[in-house]
Amino acid sequence: MAALCFEIRPGSYYDSVILMQLQRALAELPGVLDAGVVMGTPANHELLLASGLYPSGATAARPDDLLIVIQAEDEEAGQRALAQVDRQLQRRRTTIQNAFQPRSLDSALKQMPQATWVLVSVPGRYAAGVAREALAQGRHLFLYSDNVALEDEIALKQEAAEKGLLVMGPDCGTAIIQGIGLGFANRVRRGAIGLVGASGTGLQAITSRIHNLGGGVSQAIGTGGRDLRAAVGGLTAGAAIDLLGRDPETRVIVLVSKPPAAEVATRLLATAMTTGKPTVIYFQGYAPPGRRINNLHFARNLTEAARMAVDLSREEIALQDDPAAKKRQGPYVRGLFSGGTLAYEAVLGLQAVLHPLYTNVPVRPEQRLPDANQRQGPVHRSGHTILDLGADEFTQGRLHPMIDPDLRLRRMKQEALAADVGLILLDVVLGEGAHPDPAGALASTIQQVTREENIAVVALVVGTDDDPQNRPGQIDQLHAAGAMVFTDTGDMVAYIARHWATAATATVSPPVSLAALQAPFAAVNIGLATFADSLAAQGAEVVSLDWRPPAGGDEKLMALLAKMKN
Amino acid sequence: MAALCFEIRPGSYYDSVILMQLQRALAELPGVLDAGVVMGTPANHELLLASGLYPSGATAARPDDLLIVIQAEDEEAGQRALAQVDRQLQRRRTTIQNAFQPRSLDSALKQMPQATWVLVSVPGRYAAGVAREALAQGRHLFLYSDNVALEDEIALKQEAAEKGLLVMGPDCGTAIIQGIGLGFANRVRRGAIGLVGASGTGLQAITSRIHNLGGGVSQAIGTGGRDLRAAVGGLTAGAAIDLLGRDPETRVIVLVSKPPAAEVATRLLATAMTTGKPTVIYFQGYAPPGRRINNLHFARNLTEAARMAVDLSREEIALQDDPAAKKRQGPYVRGLFSGGTLAYEAVLGLQAVLHPLYTNVPVRPEQRLPDANQRQGPVHRSGHTILDLGADEFTQGRLHPMIDPDLRLRRMKQEALAADVGLILLDVVLGEGAHPDPAGALASTIQQVTREENIAVVALVVGTDDDPQNRPGQIDQLHAAGAMVFTDTGDMVAYIARHWATAATATVSPPVSLAALQAPFAAVNIGLATFADSLAAQGAEVVSLDWRPPAGGDEKLMALLAKMKN
Repeated sequence: MAALCFEIRPGSYYDSVILMQLQRALAELPGVLDAGVVMGTPANHELLLASGLYPSGATAARPDDLLIVIQAEDEEAGQRALAQVDRQLQRRRTTIQNAFQPRSLDSALKQMPQATWVLVSVPGRYAAGVAREALAQGRHLFLYSDNVALEDEIALKQEAAEKGLLVMGPDCGTAIIQGIGLGFANRVRRGAIGLVGASGTGLQAITSRIHNLGGGVSQAIGTGGRDLRAAVGGLTAGAAIDLLGRDPETRVIVLVSKPPAAEVATRLLATAMTTGKPTVIYFQGYAPPGRRINNLHFARNLTEAARMAVDLSREEIALQDDPAAKKRQGPYVRGLFSGGTLAYEAVLGLQAVLHPLYTNVPVRPEQRLPDANQRQGPVHRSGHTILDLGADEFTQGRLHPMIDPDLRLRRMKQEALAADVGLILLDVVLGEGAHPDPAGALASTIQQVTREENIAVVALVVGTDDDPQNRPGQIDQLHAAGAMVFTDTGDMVAYIARHWATAATATVSPPVSLAALQAPFAAVNIGLATFADSLAAQGAEVVSLDWRPPAGGDEKLMALLAKMKN
Repeated sequence: MAALCFEIRPGSYYDSVILMQLQRALAELPGVLDAGVVMGTPANHELLLASGLYPSGATAARPDDLLIVIQAEDEEAGQRALAQVDRQLQRRRTTIQNAFQPRSLDSALKQMPQATWVLVSVPGRYAAGVAREALAQGRHLFLYSDNVALEDEIALKQEAAEKGLLVMGPDCGTAIIQGIGLGFANRVRRGAIGLVGASGTGLQAITSRIHNLGGGVSQAIGTGGRDLRAAVGGLTAGAAIDLLGRDPETRVIVLVSKPPAAEVATRLLATAMTTGKPTVIYFQGYAPPGRRINNLHFARNLTEAARMAVDLSREEIALQDDPAAKKRQGPYVRGLFSGGTLAYEAVLGLQAVLHPLYTNVPVRPEQRLPDANQRQGPVHRSGHTILDLGADEFTQGRLHPMIDPDLRLRRMKQEALAADVGLILLDVVLGEGAHPDPAGALASTIQQVTREENIAVVALVVGTDDDPQNRPGQIDQLHAAGAMVFTDTGDMVAYIARHWATAATATVSPPVSLAALQAPFAAVNIGLATFADSLAAQGAEVVSLDWRPPAGGDEKLMALLAKMKN
C-alpha cells in the first residue's frame, strides 16, 4: 500500500537548481512513485496538496524551511529515499564546485577586473545586499532575482543613477549586451535595433522576431517589470533610452513595457522624442495614442513591434525639419471641441505627450475635471485641458456648438486672458446640419487671440470637398485668421507634441557611459550556475562567485551582522 | 454708464434655434453691447457669469426658466431692448411656420405614409415620449435629443428590438441612410463601406476621410454614446452589425465607439466575426487586442480606421477556410505560461473574444484572480483562465518554469481532469538560460492530455533557428505530441477566437428588415427645423411636425395628462 513520507529541514538555504535535481533524483529511486522537494511557501503547499503529496504533518513547513515529500510503494521505500537526501545533496554540490570559485565579490573582481557587469540571481531576500555591493564597486547590474522589496529597488536605482550605472531588474529575465545574452535570451544576429524592455519575454519575443525577419539587435536592455511604476519613475528605462540615443550602433529604438504609469509614460516618450531616432513603442494594454507621433511609432502587439522596427531600420532616416515653435504666452493647451469623439481622440493622443491633462471626456479616471466649467484639474492643479462643449451639461437649453458658436467664442476669449495658456485647440466640423460658415463665425475671435494675446490657435477641420460649407474656403479663412490648420488628428497631435510636450526625463546625471555597451562583455555571476555556463558558452568572460547567504541564512544572525556593519 | 438689465420668463418652452436668433437680434439693437438668452441651467449660469452678463437677480432663474440678460450703454437702452423681446419672438415664429405643418405624428404619417424614419430633436425631457409614439407606429428612430434618461433609452431599445426596429440614439448626432445624411453628416460618395458608430463626430471623421481617400459609404448607423455600456448591452450596435452583415451593398464594416463595456465588446466582436465580412474595429481608448483577429482588423485612430476600410473595400475578399474545431471536452481555455509578457499578451488578445477571463496578470482589474492557485474567478465564477507561472508567487523557493517544468506539468494534469476545460495553452520559450529541451519535457504530458483526456493543446513557440534548443526539432516534438503550434501570438489568438469565442449577441428577434436600408429615404422630423431643411436640400422626402411640448411645457400638468392616459 502506497505511503507518504516527509521531512522538514528548518531554515537552511539551498540553491533552486539543487532542489530540482534532488527532486528528480529521489523520484527515480526504486519504489518511489513521486517526490516533491520545495521551500515551504504558500504556493508550494498548494501545489503539493494538488499533487497528492501532502501528508498532514507537512503543514508545519514555513517559507524558509525545506520540505521533502516522498510518495512510495510502501513506508520502507519512502524512508529509504529520505535517508538518501544527504548523500544526494552532497553529490550535487561536488559536481557543481569543480572549478576554483572566489568567495567574495572583492576577490572575484580582483580575479577579473575588466568585469564591468555583475549578474545577481540569489534568492530575493539576499539580492538587494549583493546588488548594493556591486554598485559600490562601480559595476552595472543584471538583477535576475525576484521577490525584492520595492523600496530596495528604488534605493538601488537612485544610487545607480547618481553613479551613472545601469540597474537591470530586479526580476529582469533578459538582456543582450554586446551580442551576449544574459539570463534568458535568444540567439539573434547583431544589428541596428536597440531595445529597452520592462518585460522579459516581451524582449525575447521581439528580438526573436527581429532575427526571424532578417533584422538584428544592437543591445537589449531589461529594466525589470516595476521600473515604469510611478514610485520607481522609469529610472532605468530613461537612462537606457538616453544611452541608446547616444549609441552610434543603434539606429532604431524599441521600448516595450506592460502598462506604465501615465506620467512615467509621458516622460519616457519625451525622452524618446529627444533622441530623434525612430522609436517603436509598445505599451501592452495601453491604448495607443495613434499610429505615430513624430519619431514615435505605436505597435499593437509584439509581432508588429518587431516588424515595424525591422522596416524602420531599413529606411534611410531623414531627421525631421522642425519649424520653430510659435512664441507663446503660457505652457498649457486648451482644447475647446464641438465634437465629443474628436475631443476624446485629442485626449487619447495628447495624453501621451502632455501631463497633467484634464477633461470632461477622460480616457483615465484621474483626468476627469470635477466641473467642466473649471479651467483646472482636481484640487486646482494647473495643466492642459480638453473640453467637449457638446457634452450634455453644455447643451441643456442651448443649441449644439456645431450649430451655435456662441459658447465657444466666449470661452476662447476667457482662456486667452489666462497667463498660463499658450495654445487653443478647436475642431471645425463641416457637413449637413452644421453651421453654414463655422470658420467665418470663429475667424474674428481667432484673429484677436493670435494677434493681440499672442496665443497659438490650432484648428482641426473635418469634412469633404462636397460639403455645403466649401472646405477649401473654410481652411483659407482659418489660415487668414492666424490658425494652424490640420485635417488629421495624428498630424495635429504630432505638431503639439513637438512644441508643447511635457519635459523629458530629467537628464540622468551623470549619464551612463557608452563604454558600458562598447567593451567586450565581462561579468561576475552571483547565483544560478546555469547563467554562468550560458555566458561562457557564448564566449563571454565570466567568473562565478561561490555565494552563500550571510550567516548561513539565519535571519536573526543576518540582522545582527547588518547592525554591526552600520 | 453701462447697465445690465434682465428678465426671467418662468417655465415656458422655446426652440433653441429661436433662442439663438433672439440673442443675435437683441445684440444688434442700438445701444446694446452684449446679450445672453438662455435657459437657466447651471452651465448657462456659469457662462453668463464668465461673460460679465450676470446681474445678481439672475440667480433666481431655474433650468426651466428663460433668462434674458442685456448689457447696454445705459439703463434706457437696456429696457428698450427687453421690450422688444415679444415682437422678436413673434417674428421668428412666423418666419418658421410658413408651410402647412401637421400637429401630430399620426397626421404626419397620414400625410407621408412612406416615412419609415422619424427624426426626433426635441428637448431631452420630452424625447422619450415622442420616441415611444414613433415606435408604436412601427417607425425606425433617429433620436438626436440628449439629456434622455438611461432607463428610457433601455426601454426604447428593448421595445425596438422586439419589433425589429432600429433606435439610433439618444444623443445620436450622425447617420447616413441611403445616401441621405441625418443630423450632422458630411457629403460622401456612396460605396461599399457600412459603418456603425457609438460616436457622432467619430462617424463624421471616418466617413469624411473615406470619401477623401476615394472610398464610399453604403450606410452609417449611429447608436448614441451609451449604447455599448453594459446596461444597454449594445442593442442598437448588435442589430446594426447584423443588418450590415446581411446588406449586399456593404462589403466592409467599420465599428467605431468610445470604450465599450468589456462583455459588450466581446459580444459585438463575436457578432462581427459571424458576418464573415472584413470589419475594422476602432474602440477609442481601448488597447487593441492585436493587429488583426480573423476578419477583425484593429485601428489605432480615426484616420487609420478609414484607411484600413478603404484598403479592405478594394481587396478581393476570400472568405477564410475554417478548419473544423477539434472535438473538445469543455468550453473553457486554460493558459499556463512561463513568460509573464506572453501571458499578458494572451490576455490582451483573448479578452476580445473570451468572456469571462481571469488571470494573475490582468489587463482590467475585474480580471484579477484573487488567488492564482485557484482555477476560477471571483466568487467561483467559471471562466477562462490565463496564468503566468513565472510570477513572484510561484518562484519563491523554486526555479523559474522556463528552467524547471515540474509546476507546469503538474498543473496541466490537474486542469485536464476538469470537465469544463477544453483547451490548454502553453508557451515554449527557447534560448540561452532556458531549459535545454522544453518540448521534450512537456511532450509526454501533452500527449496524455490530448489523447486520453481529449483536450486540445496549443503551444506558442518563441525563439530563433540559432537558439541552442533546435527550434524546428522543438516544433516537431510538440506536433508529434498532438499540440497545435503557433509562433505568433496574433495567429494563436485568431485560432482560439475561431473555435472558443464567446457566443455572439443573441440573434435579434425579429432582425431589422433590410427594407429599412433599401427604400428611398423618407422621414418625419420632430424638433430642429434645420434638420428638415437639410434633408429636403439632399432630396429626401420629409414632413415636419409643428411640435409643442405637452401641456405647454407645464410639468405638473404633463404628469397629470400622463396619468390620465394610463
